[in-house]
Amino acid sequence: MPPKKRARLKKTWQEIARKAQDHRDASLNGQLNGADEALEELEHAKQRSSNAITITHNLPNLISREVLEITGIHPCRLSTFLSAGYRKTEDVMSAFCQMAAVAQKSVNCLTELLSSRAMVRAVELDKQFAITGRPVGPLHGIPVSVKSHIGVQGCQMAAGYVAWWDSREHRASKDALVVQILERAGAIVHARTTEPQSMMQLECVSNLYGTTVNPHNTNLSSGGSSGGEAALLAMRGSVIGVGSDVGGSIRVPAAACGIYGLKPTAFRVPTTGWSSTPPGADPIPTVIGPMSICLDKIEDFMKTVLAAEPWKVEPALIPLPWRDVEINPTPEQPLRIGVALHDNVVLPHPPILEAMQKFIDKIGALPNVEVVKFPLYKFDEAWAIASSLYFTDGGAADRKVMEESEEPMLPLVRWMLEENPGVKNLTREELEYWLEEREEYRLEYAERWNQTGFWDEAEGQWSNTVDALICPVAPGVASIHNTAKYWAYSAVWNLLDYPALAFPLRNVDKNRDLVEHRDDFLSPQDQAHWELYDPEVFHGVPVGLQIVGRRLEDEKIVAILNHFRSHECLLVVPQFYEHEEGTPSS
Amino acid sequence: MPPKKRARLKKTWQEIARKAQDHRDASLNGQLNGADEALEELEHAKQRSSNAITITHNLPNLISREVLEITGIHPCRLSTFLSAGYRKTEDVMSAFCQMAAVAQKSVNCLTELLSSRAMVRAVELDKQFAITGRPVGPLHGIPVSVKSHIGVQGCQMAAGYVAWWDSREHRASKDALVVQILERAGAIVHARTTEPQSMMQLECVSNLYGTTVNPHNTNLSSGGSSGGEAALLAMRGSVIGVGSDVGGSIRVPAAACGIYGLKPTAFRVPTTGWSSTPPGADPIPTVIGPMSICLDKIEDFMKTVLAAEPWKVEPALIPLPWRDVEINPTPEQPLRIGVALHDNVVLPHPPILEAMQKFIDKIGALPNVEVVKFPLYKFDEAWAIASSLYFTDGGAADRKVMEESEEPMLPLVRWMLEENPGVKNLTREELEYWLEEREEYRLEYAERWNQTGFWDEAEGQWSNTVDALICPVAPGVASIHNTAKYWAYSAVWNLLDYPALAFPLRNVDKNRDLVEHRDDFLSPQDQAHWELYDPEVFHGVPVGLQIVGRRLEDEKIVAILNHFRSHECLLVVPQFYEHEEGTPSS
Repeated sequence: MPPKKRARLKKTWQEIARKAQDHRDASLNGQLNGADEALEELEHAKQRSSNAITITHNLPNLISREVLEITGIHPCRLSTFLSAGYRKTEDVMSAFCQMAAVAQKSVNCLTELLSSRAMVRAVELDKQFAITGRPVGPLHGIPVSVKSHIGVQGCQMAAGYVAWWDSREHRASKDALVVQILERAGAIVHARTTEPQSMMQLECVSNLYGTTVNPHNTNLSSGGSSGGEAALLAMRGSVIGVGSDVGGSIRVPAAACGIYGLKPTAFRVPTTGWSSTPPGADPIPTVIGPMSICLDKIEDFMKTVLAAEPWKVEPALIPLPWRDVEINPTPEQPLRIGVALHDNVVLPHPPILEAMQKFIDKIGALPNVEVVKFPLYKFDEAWAIASSLYFTDGGAADRKVMEESEEPMLPLVRWMLEENPGVKNLTREELEYWLEEREEYRLEYAERWNQTGFWDEAEGQWSNTVDALICPVAPGVASIHNTAKYWAYSAVWNLLDYPALAFPLRNVDKNRDLVEHRDDFLSPQDQAHWELYDPEVFHGVPVGLQIVGRRLEDEKIVAILNHFRSHECLLVVPQFYEHEEGTPSS
Repeated sequence: MPPKKRARLKKTWQEIARKAQDHRDASLNGQLNGADEALEELEHAKQRSSNAITITHNLPNLISREVLEITGIHPCRLSTFLSAGYRKTEDVMSAFCQMAAVAQKSVNCLTELLSSRAMVRAVELDKQFAITGRPVGPLHGIPVSVKSHIGVQGCQMAAGYVAWWDSREHRASKDALVVQILERAGAIVHARTTEPQSMMQLECVSNLYGTTVNPHNTNLSSGGSSGGEAALLAMRGSVIGVGSDVGGSIRVPAAACGIYGLKPTAFRVPTTGWSSTPPGADPIPTVIGPMSICLDKIEDFMKTVLAAEPWKVEPALIPLPWRDVEINPTPEQPLRIGVALHDNVVLPHPPILEAMQKFIDKIGALPNVEVVKFPLYKFDEAWAIASSLYFTDGGAADRKVMEESEEPMLPLVRWMLEENPGVKNLTREELEYWLEEREEYRLEYAERWNQTGFWDEAEGQWSNTVDALICPVAPGVASIHNTAKYWAYSAVWNLLDYPALAFPLRNVDKNRDLVEHRDDFLSPQDQAHWELYDPEVFHGVPVGLQIVGRRLEDEKIVAILNHFRSHECLLVVPQFYEHEEGTPSS
């Protein structure tokens, strides 16, 4: 058939997007109480308030008290309830499916609800529990949502592209390895979440589904690229989210939505079964990692995934189980925390600087914790290297996918591909040059880290170096749409392959986080960014930071953050209901 | 200055090579007893025998009984003697320097003897021992030799190239990280060893130093590229050798010379301070690894290097100490060993097949050891991938270095660069294609390994897979010069990044290892290779095999081989003197 004719028969990108949305909407069927009337109430409420979380609390016609109660249980307690049989998996799943549907209506975070699959699995788990009296695994009955480019059998892995939503090649023939492992441990996949066009955005907008907005302030972005995950989790429509990160895509939305998000060291969590380059062939590897409102669930995810020894199936992975790390600082061996307020290129907005200062003061006052300055290093150079290595073909493959469906290139994708001088079609020599630059930068950074301590000649080792680093995730909180253009704070840790964990601290308060006048700026970007700050605009959205460790010290940064949590330096996971049901009888 | 003029002023490659040899010869001064007369005796003896080891036993004018006795001590006992102060480091070093000088005169394995540096360090160690009564570290006084492309302060890292021997850029400004670590643990670097032109040969010949020959049969090759190391160690002129391997360069010479040689998993042993691409930037990483006549010294090297936490300085390394692995097979959990007699492309020569069969019978008769067939897989495809990735520029950089000095390209380098269709100047797209092929092959091989066991649904794991694999190192024993052209047996494990340890089993016996007639051949290469076999030619040279583990299971393959040793399945390290001195008084 001549191509012209075929082109005429082809669906337009708008038709495909419509189909994708219809498919998503159909998947919500039966989950929305009272449907039309309740949804109308929701639309009204949205006019009055931009806080999607509080709105859902106040619409009993949309969400029953029971659903709100179940989804509001602290995730740790939920695990205990499920593992003890105190709560039926079926009830829990039903509540989370309903809440996920409401989250979709509120912040546009889903590509598909998998309620049938989830409910079948829930019933199965309850049956098995009834027979054995024991949980199936450490994640028995825990709802898990998955970013859509990660394979779930029979579903499209679109990576935010219209053409891929309509391509057989991008339909998952089976569950991704990470999904298989989680479900084998008792978890239940119930929802798939939005991702931006090309996935190379720190916001979450595509021609397929439009924009995912922030649950705390629906005028702002949820962050991206794992923005659907972050929004759904903040809405309490899921307990563990499976996100991915090559430049901030787990941490930026986690910080924007007030949850935890871990970008593990590369080659720990399996990526088999996603729609992408094979693991190990990328100059900057994209990693899969957990997101949750609860720090323990971050650790549960990592423990569970690594206990399955995924390296036997995906040999690019490092065969290393999740190791127990004890944090017991003493006067002789204090916990040493490096802090970096900014990167000398773009100063973070006032609420971030203030939150960081408070946090430093708090942890610095703990017994045997030393806080030391750790200036960030050559972040502009890091971005030059990273942006050169993200698209070795200059974005040609991405352009081709967009041309296939004739969908328009969105502003942040255009910015990335057309306004970053590093993004170009590399020759092999250039690719090899940038790989050597990458190694050189990694070497220099290791040296910087060592220099926070001293060389112990007797031991033949670097000693007393900082245990972890605290720094911003981004120069701003949840961004105004189409403004998230400064990646360095998050992307540098991908370039270095250091694990980094975003965590929430507080929310912006317009009465406290005032505009500060500055005459001097670090750079033109700094000035442009500073001028974006407006307390009225950002009021109410979360403020997060990240804790960063040396390569493969994922366990250590989680343990250190746990140490700070046990000393009440962190935000407490909010309960939806104060008078929650008690603990299970044992 | 116009380039023509400069070219005329330049030294010829022959002049530079002469200078390199003079430098080496000068470094031997004072180490050769009786000098001229004794050396004449050696030359006479060489006419009569091709076994350099037995020759040295019978030339008391060249090597004193004391030198022979010290260098003949079992390496484990030597460590005990030195650590207990029962032997002075000075005496030991003096003996090994003399023996190394004799080895050079016998098999041409050195580029430089470092006797002054070594003796200064030895005296220092003895002094420290006298003060503290304790060894400086676990390698107190142990002689270590280093392949010449690995940095030793002030020395040229020529990589077998004439031009680099004459270039300031290739002079080490300090010791390589691995050398620093070994010396900090008490070892003493006393010798630097030969390497072939380009280092991409499985033999050891350069225009700088000529050919390194096999101590067991000086008509044959020592193997390469770490051929100087293997020859020196087999001559007992060193205890631990630091070699490197990207396609067999540790294991092939180890097998050819009858010693142990470990190619560790990549990114365990630091490579900082050698003359090469930065670690992490190569599609098939070259690794540094230990060689020794004694298996324990292989483990001592790894333990010592990893205990120094080199990953803090070289961040491409995996932060993983050397782990203790217990091998205690039971009837329920037997030790399962895969064996592969050949790769279906080139059948190994009769002594290798016979030795492997004997070894399999021996280990198969041990309690709780199961031997299972593990056919090798797509070795021709593996070579296509590996050879494409070795020289991404098609060898342009290598050609340029040779052109610089106008040295001739040697036959095996010509074969590699000009007769391997995979070796060509790759575009970025081709490089990325081969990287994806590499990942695909790694994935398939992991699957093959899993298939040696079964999928345990209850555990969600592959179970009962083989613990290690035994196979040939190469299709032949020590090669006739310029014939080592079949790399697949060794190079496939570099492509897969599986650790592999070569070990000696016996020596070729012309009366036993007869020519076998074959009518059918697996391939034209197979026929050509088979026709090379002649018992008279190979009589007396060692027969070695390799044990291969999954990625990062270096500890396990060493432990398994130790298990076989403790059950007397391995060759015993020969003592030079039967009536060696007793153990130290404690």
